[in-house]
Amino acid sequence: MDLFYSDYLEGCHPRILAALTQTNLEQTPGYGVDAHCERARALIREACRAPEAAVHLLVGGTQTNQTVIAAALRPHQGVLCADSGHINVHESGAIEATGHKVLPLPGAAGGKLTAEQVEGALRAHFDDENAEHTVQPGMVYLSHPTEYGALYTKAELSAISGVCRRWQIPLFLDGARLGYGLTAQGAELTLPDLAALTDVFYIGGTKVGALFGEAVVITNPALNRDFRYLIKQRGGMLAKGRLLGVQFETLFEDGLYFELGRHANEMAYRVRDAFVRAGYPLLLESPTNQQFPILPDGDYERLKQTAAGELWQRIDAGHCAWRFCTSWCTDPAAVERLEHALAGLQTERR
Amino acid sequence: MDLFYSDYLEGCHPRILAALTQTNLEQTPGYGVDAHCERARALIREACRAPEAAVHLLVGGTQTNQTVIAAALRPHQGVLCADSGHINVHESGAIEATGHKVLPLPGAAGGKLTAEQVEGALRAHFDDENAEHTVQPGMVYLSHPTEYGALYTKAELSAISGVCRRWQIPLFLDGARLGYGLTAQGAELTLPDLAALTDVFYIGGTKVGALFGEAVVITNPALNRDFRYLIKQRGGMLAKGRLLGVQFETLFEDGLYFELGRHANEMAYRVRDAFVRAGYPLLLESPTNQQFPILPDGDYERLKQTAAGELWQRIDAGHCAWRFCTSWCTDPAAVERLEHALAGLQTERR
Amino acid sequence: MDLFYSDYLEGCHPRILAALTQTNLEQTPGYGVDAHCERARALIREACRAPEAAVHLLVGGTQTNQTVIAAALRPHQGVLCADSGHINVHESGAIEATGHKVLPLPGAAGGKLTAEQVEGALRAHFDDENAEHTVQPGMVYLSHPTEYGALYTKAELSAISGVCRRWQIPLFLDGARLGYGLTAQGAELTLPDLAALTDVFYIGGTKVGALFGEAVVITNPALNRDFRYLIKQRGGMLAKGRLLGVQFETLFEDGLYFELGRHANEMAYRVRDAFVRAGYPLLLESPTNQQFPILPDGDYERLKQTAAGELWQRIDAGHCAWRFCTSWCTDPAAVERLEHALAGLQTERR
Amino acid sequence: MDLFYSDYLEGCHPRILAALTQTNLEQTPGYGVDAHCERARALIREACRAPEAAVHLLVGGTQTNQTVIAAALRPHQGVLCADSGHINVHESGAIEATGHKVLPLPGAAGGKLTAEQVEGALRAHFDDENAEHTVQPGMVYLSHPTEYGALYTKAELSAISGVCRRWQIPLFLDGARLGYGLTAQGAELTLPDLAALTDVFYIGGTKVGALFGEAVVITNPALNRDFRYLIKQRGGMLAKGRLLGVQFETLFEDGLYFELGRHANEMAYRVRDAFVRAGYPLLLESPTNQQFPILPDGDYERLKQTAAGELWQRIDAGHCAWRFCTSWCTDPAAVERLEHALAGLQTERR
Repeated sequence: MDLFYSDYLEGCHPRILAALTQTNLEQTPGYGVDAHCERARALIREACRAPEAAVHLLVGGTQTNQTVIAAALRPHQGVLCADSGHINVHESGAIEATGHKVLPLPGAAGGKLTAEQVEGALRAHFDDENAEHTVQPGMVYLSHPTEYGALYTKAELSAISGVCRRWQIPLFLDGARLGYGLTAQGAELTLPDLAALTDVFYIGGTKVGALFGEAVVITNPALNRDFRYLIKQRGGMLAKGRLLGVQFETLFEDGLYFELGRHANEMAYRVRDAFVRAGYPLLLESPTNQQFPILPDGDYERLKQTAAGELWQRIDAGHCAWRFCTSWCTDPAAVERLEHALAGLQTERR
Repeated sequence: MDLFYSDYLEGCHPRILAALTQTNLEQTPGYGVDAHCERARALIREACRAPEAAVHLLVGGTQTNQTVIAAALRPHQGVLCADSGHINVHESGAIEATGHKVLPLPGAAGGKLTAEQVEGALRAHFDDENAEHTVQPGMVYLSHPTEYGALYTKAELSAISGVCRRWQIPLFLDGARLGYGLTAQGAELTLPDLAALTDVFYIGGTKVGALFGEAVVITNPALNRDFRYLIKQRGGMLAKGRLLGVQFETLFEDGLYFELGRHANEMAYRVRDAFVRAGYPLLLESPTNQQFPILPDGDYERLKQTAAGELWQRIDAGHCAWRFCTSWCTDPAAVERLEHALAGLQTERR
Repeated sequence: MDLFYSDYLEGCHPRILAALTQTNLEQTPGYGVDAHCERARALIREACRAPEAAVHLLVGGTQTNQTVIAAALRPHQGVLCADSGHINVHESGAIEATGHKVLPLPGAAGGKLTAEQVEGALRAHFDDENAEHTVQPGMVYLSHPTEYGALYTKAELSAISGVCRRWQIPLFLDGARLGYGLTAQGAELTLPDLAALTDVFYIGGTKVGALFGEAVVITNPALNRDFRYLIKQRGGMLAKGRLLGVQFETLFEDGLYFELGRHANEMAYRVRDAFVRAGYPLLLESPTNQQFPILPDGDYERLKQTAAGELWQRIDAGHCAWRFCTSWCTDPAAVERLEHALAGLQTERR
Repeated sequence: MDLFYSDYLEGCHPRILAALTQTNLEQTPGYGVDAHCERARALIREACRAPEAAVHLLVGGTQTNQTVIAAALRPHQGVLCADSGHINVHESGAIEATGHKVLPLPGAAGGKLTAEQVEGALRAHFDDENAEHTVQPGMVYLSHPTEYGALYTKAELSAISGVCRRWQIPLFLDGARLGYGLTAQGAELTLPDLAALTDVFYIGGTKVGALFGEAVVITNPALNRDFRYLIKQRGGMLAKGRLLGVQFETLFEDGLYFELGRHANEMAYRVRDAFVRAGYPLLLESPTNQQFPILPDGDYERLKQTAAGELWQRIDAGHCAWRFCTSWCTDPAAVERLEHALAGLQTERR
């Protein structure tokens, strides 16, 4: 059985492992001030065309969200996000543990916020004469791709960015799966765009070929002030920081990060097309590595002997939406087996 | 120049890297519920002769301290520790960031608390009729080896444990360098002792041969309740949790962890003896992998062309104490070069 | 112009002021351990028929909610409430500031939760195999009367209480306006009922005749452990605690609290009836001291020359719902003026 | 028996009670935006000759310290104070509950910090190349009078203020007993001095004649930003805010605050002189309303039949230091009884 549960089922791309092996006995200072981290930071600044940006390498996503948000907000402030936002639903209250309310905006299609929603929420707060009895929005959080695999267009992100700048609220973009978002068909947003339109974002490594690691890019210098203290305080400063440096060096020195993203997306499109050809509807359109076909329960039981996804959502008594994730590591042969199995299910149904 | 700055200058023991390479393409569920983590936990329980203990694998020490302490305390409680305790001085306020005061007890020789000190602090609090205006001690934190390399004897730890149990305060032992403590000359405390005498302790991997990783052993079931939520909330739940499993499996499947500890200690004793032979006093006696010779500034300038330590403390206008750390990875040839250099300095002085 | 904005526009009932004056020069210990506080606690325990209950006197509602909730929850837990609950919308993130997520349940009619909603939320969490990635519900918060003036029936509260006990989740009832709830027409729940069905609730003084003060009644001893430390830590321990004791003594020594509640409700019914007679719909039925008539904007402009409410909600381009609050202090003559004004508006319309 | 335990044994000055009675039935908006609060703020700004200062009225001292400090610090920052500082020892961890470490400086004579100590602590931190592993000092907290009744001279406070400004660290002065400090013999510092030399301080009402209340004066506009949200979030925004307004109006409209301070000090000097005349040493010199005589235990047992203090500190097996507090309310007749009793003890000893 091939697993399509998630994009963090395997270790890392072999070139990363090779680099870790090759550098294993080097002696370097700890905590991210070594030459590998330096070079990784330089490569990322270059890829973002943001020579002034600060880059910090952290271990995981929840830690990164928690650190960035707690660094940016004053105690009475909260963070606006889609109600499906990772920080709202899947981080065990990590943001609230730093004292801040997550302010979810409902009804975001595909997990995307709109500029109108953000504008509306800010206006509603600051126009309220009892505002001081409520939580002040102090940051906007987006994920790109979203938790549903959706992407912002350049116009959409520019509009949100414009609202944030008018209201002087920093914009934070969670790029846990950014590699897949940058290389999707029809993707409009590039790293330089993100650097230009947000105040801070991160480039996910954990889900895109690294063993672990998220590279935070801060273009708003106010948010960078004393940021390393905050990484340390939240438990995110890796003693052997160079492990992060080596990994991001490898991912960015000759475009491996993008190559891995493209591969996963291609595999995802084949998965998607196979479900559609077999007559299964999709919960929503996703241009990235997560696909959400809806199957009758019996069909899924049959399919999973070959290829298994993760239960996403029960649709009705007889159907569920399943998440099928591809990754940097998805074997085309596994996709082929899935295609066969789906074709078989289709044949039987006739 | 050989660096003796710290015990986390290099990557990891080659067998760990080999295991990571070998398991790299396995597909496993995330977040530490895979078979490697299971086996690592079983091996650790066995090494501790604590079949009922819960074992959790986290990434780093500050994160581990923060998570364990926040899990154990109610909001009005603080944690007693030596004033030189890592949580008091080198974690950027990570404990306070969870809402809890660190309650340092002054004057601990070599960074060690005594049962009398702990008893005194508890009695002082609970006898105070204004106790509720002060922070209630709710946990005792020790490090073993301490930040100065010192070790508790079995009698000392038993006495502290007895005090804690009488007062019903959990005892937490930070074992970031535990491998060096378990294998030192004259070391009395074993893993089963720690499991029996504390409520929770951790076995440090980061500084003892792993890329990263700390194994928390919880023998008091009350402290284990919902502990995984807390790991997640504090950002410590590694997505590819099996990386921790593979590392601790390797360290514990045939005694590698102890072997690495012994090696470092042997190297440390040679380092220590070389300094002593060359006529330099030690700041304090340490039976483990950290040694603290005091050198005239000029001598250190000369020495560091061969072998460099970390500045620990200025003693007077002309002398400093330096920390020389060995590790699982210290090359005997480097120690030999250090011995030569010290012998050379001694000769010149005559 | 008479103001019906809120129920905390004036100082306190004259008997309270008289008692404060009479006791002013007594010398008493601070922090709530004086004889007045003792007697107030005894009177409240008696009124609740809860001889074992702990009673604590705090200054204000937000402080009380924050202290009770932070005392009850472990770090990874949150508190279930109606989405209109005061802790969710009008406390500036006070609960999150203690590290806990507020878990709002949507669609509560009149601000009331149902046992089914609570059961559903608990089941959804504890049945979720990824539960540890989300916030664990650790308490249920109700307000009675709700923010919309609604009351739970005995059957409704018993059902919620039953769910909480089955799931071993404490039930907390915010009684900021409890005096009005206990004495409303058709009110079923008494103080002994609340003591029996909840784990902790509070009897609001600030809005029911006191200068300030909320009496927390804790019937679940686990929640009372070290509670005074928590009051102190959250800034709620009044130095001259006897001020709270004297006030609650006066309110409870011969039924003044209930008398004030009944008066406000009678005034509220006259206000409600006057709006209804004049042909104005009500946003919702409220049996307590808050009434929510909907008026055309022009009519309200005219009315407010005589009697002013607080804007509650815009209904459409031409209409708003207004909150008219009565209180322990509402002058029947002011209600009469309001009745006249409304009758006048009705006459003109014809 | 007359009690000299503390300065908050009684209610409030009769003129305050009269003002509360007189204004009791006024209808005012809640939360401190009424005319009484406005006037109190204006009177305080005038007394401070600080027309641009923001003034906020809170209920109690711990709440005030917690709110001011949490408003000023970023998450990785702590607050420097004397080790005897109220925030370090008598607030049940209220500051840590907001996530911040209290950074006590040892050995402060009479509870006073020196400019050298503060300079030293700041330099030690910012010169440390591992600073980011430690808590960054982000504010300096002083109390004036200190917990031991001591006062800063103008030169001393100016020097500390200068250090803070050079390092761009805000200076916060806790004036819980400020009335006694402003009117002591030899006192140099006036309200305008405090407004000029600190960034924020507060004028204590609870211990100087009010029922409760502390007036925070913020002269550094950066610290005032959104301060009302923070008051609300920490539970410190009194619903009937005008109670604070009325009290501070009364204290400041014609100098009552200073009059009460002078009275207490005069009584304190008589108390001090009586102990000294009777041959008892003082633990330390205090120019304000707290005096700390050292008595043989037997003598104290005899004395307390007439006049009782609070146990401050055991000196040796046979002696203790006792705190005798006078207040705005101390009756000269009670002091006379104390003088007689002491004279009697002296006579017997001969």
